[in-house]
Amino acid sequence: MNLSFKVTPWEVSGEVDYNQLIEDFGTKKITPDLIFRIKEITGDLHPLLKRQIFFSHRDVDWLLDQYEKDPNFFLYTGRGPSGDTHLGHLMPWIFTKWLQDKFDVPLWFQMTDDEKFYFKRNIELKESNFYAHENALDVIALGFDEKKTHIFSNIEIASHLYPVAALFAKKITFSTAKAVFDFKHQNNLGEIFYTSMQAVPAVLPSILVKKNIPCLIPHAIDQDPHFRVTRDVAPKLGYLKPSSIHCIFLPGLGKKTEKMSASIKESAIYTTDSSEDVKKKISGAFTGGRATVKEQREKGGNPDICSVHKYYYCLFMWDEKEYKQNYEDCKAGRIICGDCKKDLINRINQFLQNHQKKREEARRKLEKFWVTSDKLEDISYIWKK
Amino acid sequence: MNLSFKVTPWEVSGEVDYNQLIEDFGTKKITPDLIFRIKEITGDLHPLLKRQIFFSHRDVDWLLDQYEKDPNFFLYTGRGPSGDTHLGHLMPWIFTKWLQDKFDVPLWFQMTDDEKFYFKRNIELKESNFYAHENALDVIALGFDEKKTHIFSNIEIASHLYPVAALFAKKITFSTAKAVFDFKHQNNLGEIFYTSMQAVPAVLPSILVKKNIPCLIPHAIDQDPHFRVTRDVAPKLGYLKPSSIHCIFLPGLGKKTEKMSASIKESAIYTTDSSEDVKKKISGAFTGGRATVKEQREKGGNPDICSVHKYYYCLFMWDEKEYKQNYEDCKAGRIICGDCKKDLINRINQFLQNHQKKREEARRKLEKFWVTSDKLEDISYIWKK
Repeated sequence: MNLSFKVTPWEVSGEVDYNQLIEDFGTKKITPDLIFRIKEITGDLHPLLKRQIFFSHRDVDWLLDQYEKDPNFFLYTGRGPSGDTHLGHLMPWIFTKWLQDKFDVPLWFQMTDDEKFYFKRNIELKESNFYAHENALDVIALGFDEKKTHIFSNIEIASHLYPVAALFAKKITFSTAKAVFDFKHQNNLGEIFYTSMQAVPAVLPSILVKKNIPCLIPHAIDQDPHFRVTRDVAPKLGYLKPSSIHCIFLPGLGKKTEKMSASIKESAIYTTDSSEDVKKKISGAFTGGRATVKEQREKGGNPDICSVHKYYYCLFMWDEKEYKQNYEDCKAGRIICGDCKKDLINRINQFLQNHQKKREEARRKLEKFWVTSDKLEDISYIWKK
Repeated sequence: MNLSFKVTPWEVSGEVDYNQLIEDFGTKKITPDLIFRIKEITGDLHPLLKRQIFFSHRDVDWLLDQYEKDPNFFLYTGRGPSGDTHLGHLMPWIFTKWLQDKFDVPLWFQMTDDEKFYFKRNIELKESNFYAHENALDVIALGFDEKKTHIFSNIEIASHLYPVAALFAKKITFSTAKAVFDFKHQNNLGEIFYTSMQAVPAVLPSILVKKNIPCLIPHAIDQDPHFRVTRDVAPKLGYLKPSSIHCIFLPGLGKKTEKMSASIKESAIYTTDSSEDVKKKISGAFTGGRATVKEQREKGGNPDICSVHKYYYCLFMWDEKEYKQNYEDCKAGRIICGDCKKDLINRINQFLQNHQKKREEARRKLEKFWVTSDKLEDISYIWKK
């Protein structure tokens, strides 16, 4: 393993070599063939896929085989709610929404308030549960189908999740968990047990309707260890292995192309940031510029190491022609960092202005998306809501 | 540690040296002073206490101090529901009922269907949950106060238990759990997590009414490791350490004075046994008799090693005078094993006839005792039911 970076469900550090990660984790690279096949079915190609921001997968080809026989699967993704949502979190959700639109399938969205409580030293359970509700507003603001999207907190519907987690927990030895998650003797019992809870939504809809339904999990690659375990155990319980599709991390605004981190506030743009915050953060972002404007005009900048450019690539400049033009203009010195920053600030603030409006509107809609134990008692809720 | 026996929450084997156990576990022997104090308060003395079948405790003296200031505590005990109830299970419940009567306090009764699922290889969750309901009938048949007794299954009210278990789980390292329960790398994640669930009822009433209430846990000594952990963590969460009072195991009917075991069907009397079953099992029980009736008439029997005698002592001959007479008669050869067996068969069958009638009646009452998530939402349920 390349030791200059580390990727676990709880820690991402260093400059991530994603090809190395595919090898380390044992996932598959998304091939042009697979992309073509998705385009054939959906009639469209999302930039996050075309640009290989979603770059890796497990059994998506199998899932499409199933889909072609019976267009009935569900999506599952989630969020560890320990603070405000940032743009890096939105990236896989935006793609998940596209998948929901194109395949017209339900989404189960897990808010892992228990996980965050177990793994973060200074957070109370009620705090992570609070953020479960707050972060759900960001999910809803992206426009998910209220009839097909089920958002839930692990601790709130534990009556439904814990018995299923128990099925998984019985099949996972400490030995396995230790090997997958590198647990030490200092890890607490919640941390050790937790992967059983993250496994549940991959099979819960199948349990509720008493019929095996394929599952596709879009997520950032760091969560793969959980689903490796889920995939190993699910068939032993009589359920299908979930498929998964993995994205890279949206880099932070600092010099290193590390994952945008909620713990370094300046390196990330939050969905709750003011336009002033955005201006300040992007103005201070690391770029591939030269020491002086003059030098940059002459020699050009380096978009390949520029965090502003990465924001264009991942989220804010999805028009291929425009993107290529911008890239070339930078290299040729026709535009300088100040130009890009000013433009990106505008784009982000435009996005956030709209997002924040929808986010507030989502408060009124939250109830429609929010899964309670009572709702789950009524099985028809799942497909007919 | 005396290695000729082993006592863990999941395995009891060998001839248990209970004094050694007090030392190994770090509990306190119940002193004559403490017994006297309980008698002063309750105006009575239960044979199970007088005969030191309840022989060990943690902080019962403290609990009585509290009780004298404010007569407000609750009882908590439980059952691992993996099969039918046997007489050995009833022993601590009979004492618990006496405590409820004398102190007029609520009882929270935990059916650990999750635990049994985690720890027993060949049991399904729905099976242990089924026995949770079946075993509850035995609890109810003993005459617990329906207004003050709350029986619940861990998996059914997990929405209320799991968030509290999470508070405990975060405070217990694998290192601690390993030291207390001797976990190996082959143990599954449920087994490792489980102690957090058993901790919950010790604080749940305090959480529900938002006020710290002392707790007394009557239980067989093998469960002490769980409550050692509970007592360690509860104060860190702002709750009181539960007190506990411990009984020995009702010996089986075989030669060794081992715990009555549900896995050796012949060694235990089940509450669902027919009078024929009882006759057969007691007739085959190990006694302290001689090779021939003649020899026994001449030399007398040995009640100290006799399983029939132990049944008299623990459950079926609570009249001291009668018991002593019987003991002497045996030693003097005035009665022989056949006499005792016939008498014990009668006593057990009389008890079971009554118990089985009440057990069936309990089916209709179960709902009143059974705790659901919905009931827990209504806090007033707890004290005002």
